[in-house]
Amino acid sequence: MLFHIRMDVQLPPSLSAGEAAELKAVEKARSQELQQQGKWRHLWRIGGQYSNISIFDVESVDELHTLVSTLPLFPYMKIEVLPLCRHPSSIRDDDR
Amino acid sequence: MLFHIRMDVQLPPSLSAGEAAELKAVEKARSQELQQQGKWRHLWRIGGQYSNISIFDVESVDELHTLVSTLPLFPYMKIEVLPLCRHPSSIRDDDR
Amino acid sequence: MLFHIRMDVQLPPSLSAGEAAELKAVEKARSQELQQQGKWRHLWRIGGQYSNISIFDVESVDELHTLVSTLPLFPYMKIEVLPLCRHPSSIRDDDR
Amino acid sequence: MLFHIRMDVQLPPSLSAGEAAELKAVEKARSQELQQQGKWRHLWRIGGQYSNISIFDVESVDELHTLVSTLPLFPYMKIEVLPLCRHPSSIRDDDR
Amino acid sequence: MLFHIRMDVQLPPSLSAGEAAELKAVEKARSQELQQQGKWRHLWRIGGQYSNISIFDVESVDELHTLVSTLPLFPYMKIEVLPLCRHPSSIRDDDR
Amino acid sequence: MLFHIRMDVQLPPSLSAGEAAELKAVEKARSQELQQQGKWRHLWRIGGQYSNISIFDVESVDELHTLVSTLPLFPYMKIEVLPLCRHPSSIRDDDR
Amino acid sequence: MLFHIRMDVQLPPSLSAGEAAELKAVEKARSQELQQQGKWRHLWRIGGQYSNISIFDVESVDELHTLVSTLPLFPYMKIEVLPLCRHPSSIRDDDR
Amino acid sequence: MLFHIRMDVQLPPSLSAGEAAELKAVEKARSQELQQQGKWRHLWRIGGQYSNISIFDVESVDELHTLVSTLPLFPYMKIEVLPLCRHPSSIRDDDR
Amino acid sequence: MLFHIRMDVQLPPSLSAGEAAELKAVEKARSQELQQQGKWRHLWRIGGQYSNISIFDVESVDELHTLVSTLPLFPYMKIEVLPLCRHPSSIRDDDR
Amino acid sequence: MLFHIRMDVQLPPSLSAGEAAELKAVEKARSQELQQQGKWRHLWRIGGQYSNISIFDVESVDELHTLVSTLPLFPYMKIEVLPLCRHPSSIRDDDR
Repeated sequence: MLFHIRMDVQLPPSLSAGEAAELKAVEKARSQELQQQGKWRHLWRIGGQYSNISIFDVESVDELHTLVSTLPLFPYMKIEVLPLCRHPSSIRDDDR
Repeated sequence: MLFHIRMDVQLPPSLSAGEAAELKAVEKARSQELQQQGKWRHLWRIGGQYSNISIFDVESVDELHTLVSTLPLFPYMKIEVLPLCRHPSSIRDDDR
Repeated sequence: MLFHIRMDVQLPPSLSAGEAAELKAVEKARSQELQQQGKWRHLWRIGGQYSNISIFDVESVDELHTLVSTLPLFPYMKIEVLPLCRHPSSIRDDDR
Repeated sequence: MLFHIRMDVQLPPSLSAGEAAELKAVEKARSQELQQQGKWRHLWRIGGQYSNISIFDVESVDELHTLVSTLPLFPYMKIEVLPLCRHPSSIRDDDR
Repeated sequence: MLFHIRMDVQLPPSLSAGEAAELKAVEKARSQELQQQGKWRHLWRIGGQYSNISIFDVESVDELHTLVSTLPLFPYMKIEVLPLCRHPSSIRDDDR
Repeated sequence: MLFHIRMDVQLPPSLSAGEAAELKAVEKARSQELQQQGKWRHLWRIGGQYSNISIFDVESVDELHTLVSTLPLFPYMKIEVLPLCRHPSSIRDDDR
Repeated sequence: MLFHIRMDVQLPPSLSAGEAAELKAVEKARSQELQQQGKWRHLWRIGGQYSNISIFDVESVDELHTLVSTLPLFPYMKIEVLPLCRHPSSIRDDDR
Repeated sequence: MLFHIRMDVQLPPSLSAGEAAELKAVEKARSQELQQQGKWRHLWRIGGQYSNISIFDVESVDELHTLVSTLPLFPYMKIEVLPLCRHPSSIRDDDR
Repeated sequence: MLFHIRMDVQLPPSLSAGEAAELKAVEKARSQELQQQGKWRHLWRIGGQYSNISIFDVESVDELHTLVSTLPLFPYMKIEVLPLCRHPSSIRDDDR
Repeated sequence: MLFHIRMDVQLPPSLSAGEAAELKAVEKARSQELQQQGKWRHLWRIGGQYSNISIFDVESVDELHTLVSTLPLFPYMKIEVLPLCRHPSSIRDDDR
C-alpha cells in the first residue's frame, strides 16, 4: 500500500548546531534502514528547499504512522500524506 | 532530470459525455506512449480524487513543457511542478 | 482500513432540477448500499452546509477510489481524504 | 449532539521532554475518562501527523467548550470544530 | 443554542433579473418569518459586501441545518458556521 | 455604529502562568466595564477555541481602535474587523 | 469616516462587449458624481490589474453600503473593506 | 523602472478554438513588438503551466498599466505585479 | 510615483517594553520627517489592528525601498506593496 | 537551464546584530561569486520587502540545490522555485 508524503523541515533557532547534526545523523541512518527494508520506496529532495518527496510502501496506516512519527525530525516537520492507488492509464500493474 | 507533477482534473460542465470520453481515450494513449518511452516514469492516482501524482524524466524544462502542455486534458488541469534531485540520505545513486 | 472523507457538493447552475433530483436519488441508493455492506461506516451532514463527513472502511486505497469515484455526484464534489489509524489514547482496539 | 473536531498538536521547542511527557500522560488519562463517559465518542490518529479526528457527543456547546478547553494540551493545539447532524442518506437514525 | 453564520451570496450570471428578484423576495419573507419566531436572532449586512452575519438560536444542529438549507438562496451561498457559547467574561448569563 | 470583531488569542510560551492570569484578570475587568457602558454589545466564546465573536457599538472608528488596542491581550490576539449595517431583510430598525 | 476599499473586477465571459461598455460608462459617471460630492475621496488603479484602491468618506456604514452596493459593477466585483482611523504618527489631524 | 509580472492564463470554455487562436496570434505579435522596443525585457514560460514570468522596463506605473491592460489576453489572465529595484549584492549597477 | 503599502506590525515577545518604546519613538519621528517631505503622503491606522495603510510618493522603486527598509520597525513588519496609477474614472489628473 | 527563485528572508529575533551582519557579509560574497560565474544570472530586490527575485542558470537540479542550500541565509529563507523554459512568443532563442 503506497503513500505519498511531503516533508518540510523547519529546525527551531534554539537547536544548537551539534544537536541538529546529531538529529540528522540518526534520521539518515533510520531512513536508510527503512529504504533497505523496502518500506521507504523513494526519497527525493525538492530542488532548492529543505523538503523531500517520499513514497512509502506499508501494510497499513498504523505501520505508516509508526514509521513516520518515530523519525527523529518528526517534531520539526510539516507533513502532508496522500494515499496512492493504481492509475487506470498506468502501463504497470504494480508501480512502486 | 526528474520533475514531480500533481495534476488535478476539472472538466467543465459544458463538455458532453462523448467529448469527455474521447479526450480521456487520447490522453490515455498519449500517457502510455510516454510511459513506454520512459519519459513518464511513474503515474499514480490519488485515492478518492480526480488527480494524479506523476514523475517525469526529461532532458530539459523545454521538453517537460512540450510533453505536458500537449496533453489533451491540459486545458482542464490545475498543475503543480516541483524539480527533484538526489536526496543525501537516499540509498540509491539514481532513484527513478 | 479507515479513511476520513469530507465531501463538499457544488452543483453547476446548468444542471436542471430534474437532473439534480435523479442524481441525488441514485447517490442516496448507492450510499445506502455501501452503508449496508459496512464499507461506508459513518455518514454525517455538516450543519448548515451542503457537505458531509464520512468514514470509509475498505480493504485498500484502490477499493476506496473505486467506491468514491463511481458515486453519481463525484464530478460535482470537492473531496479531501485523510488516512486514519488507532490513536494511542483510544480506549478501543478497533474503533469504527 | 455531535461535534467533529480536528486537533493539530504543536509543542513549543521550549517545553522540556519531561514536561511534555507529563502533559501527554495527563491528557491521555483525561481523554480516556471522557471516552468512558461516552462524551468523546471517537478518537482517531491521522496517519503520519501529530493530529487527531474526534467526535464529541455533548449536551451543549458550553459543555463541549468546557471539555475541550480544559485538556492539558489545549494551549498547544490548533482546533477546528464542525457541528454534525443526521445525513438524509444515512441508514441510521442515530449514528454515533 | 446559538450559532454564528456568515453567508456570502454569489448569484450565477445565468440567473435572469426576474428569477433573482423572485428568489430574493421569497428569501426575505422566509427570513422575516424566522426572525419573528426568534430562530434567526440577529441579521446584519456586512458593509460593502453581498454578505451577512447572522445569529441563529435553535434546539439542535438538525434544526439549524433544516432552517439554513431550505433558504431559497442556499444553493448560491458560501456558508461558514461557528457554534457559540457563553464567554466567561460576559456580563450576561444568556446573551442572545 | 456596529463592528463585528473576531479575536483569536495566542499567548506566547514565554509568558508565565502568573503573568497570564494577571493579564486575563485585567482583560476581564476591562471587558465587563465596556459591556456595562454598552460599548461592547455582545461577547460570545467560539465553542472549542480560545477565540471570541464580539459586537462593538461605538461612535467612530477612532473610538473602536482606542477600545480594542488598549485591551491587555491586544498584543497576543489576531483580530479581524467587519463593519456592520442594517440588513434590508431585518425586522428590526436598530438591531443591536 | 473613512473606509479603504479594494475592488477587483471580474466580468463574466457571457457578458457581451456592448453590455460591458454600457455598464462601465454608467459606473464611470456614478463614480465621478460621488467623487464630486466628496464621498469617494480617492480612486487609484492598481498597476497591471483590473482592480482599484478607493478611499470613501461617509457618514455611516449604511451610507457606505448604499453607495457601494448600487454601483453597476457591484455584482462583478470582489470587494474588501477596511475601516480607517487617525494614525498616532500622522502629522495631520484629519488626513483625507 | 523594472516590474516583475506573473501571468496565469485561463481561457473560458465558451471561447471557440478559432477565437482563441486569433487572440493568441494578436497577443504574440503585440508581445514581440514590446520586446523589440525594449519594454518587455524578459519573457519566460513556467515549465508545465500556461503561465509566464515577465520583466517589464517602463517609465512609469501608468505606462506599465497601459501596456499590460491592452494585451488581448488581459481579460483571461490572473496577474501579479512586483516592483523591482537594485539588490545591494548585485554585481551590476543596472541589471535588466 | 505612488505606491500603496500595508504594514502589519508584530513585535516579538522577547522585545522588552523599553526597547519597544524606543523603537516606536524613532519610528514615529522618522515617519513624520518623511510626511513633512511629502514622501509619505498618507498614513492611516486600520481600525482595531496594529496595522497601517500608507501611500508613498517617490521618484523610483529604489527610493521606495530605501525609505521603507530603513524604518526601525521594518524587521518586525509584514509588508505588502502595490504600484498605483491614475484611474480612468478619476476626476483628478494627479490624485495624491 | 533556468530556474526562477523567490527568497523571503526572516531572521529570528534571537540572532544578534553581529551574527546577522556576519551572515549577510558571507552571503553577499558568495552571491557575487556565483554571479561572476554566471550561475546566478539576475538578482533583484523586491521593492519594500526583505525578499529577492533571482534567476539561476545551472546544469541540473542537483547543482541548483547545492548552490541554494549552502547559502548562509538558507535556514532563514522561505524559498519558492519555478523551472523556466523558452516562451513561444519570445524574440530570443536563449533569453538569459
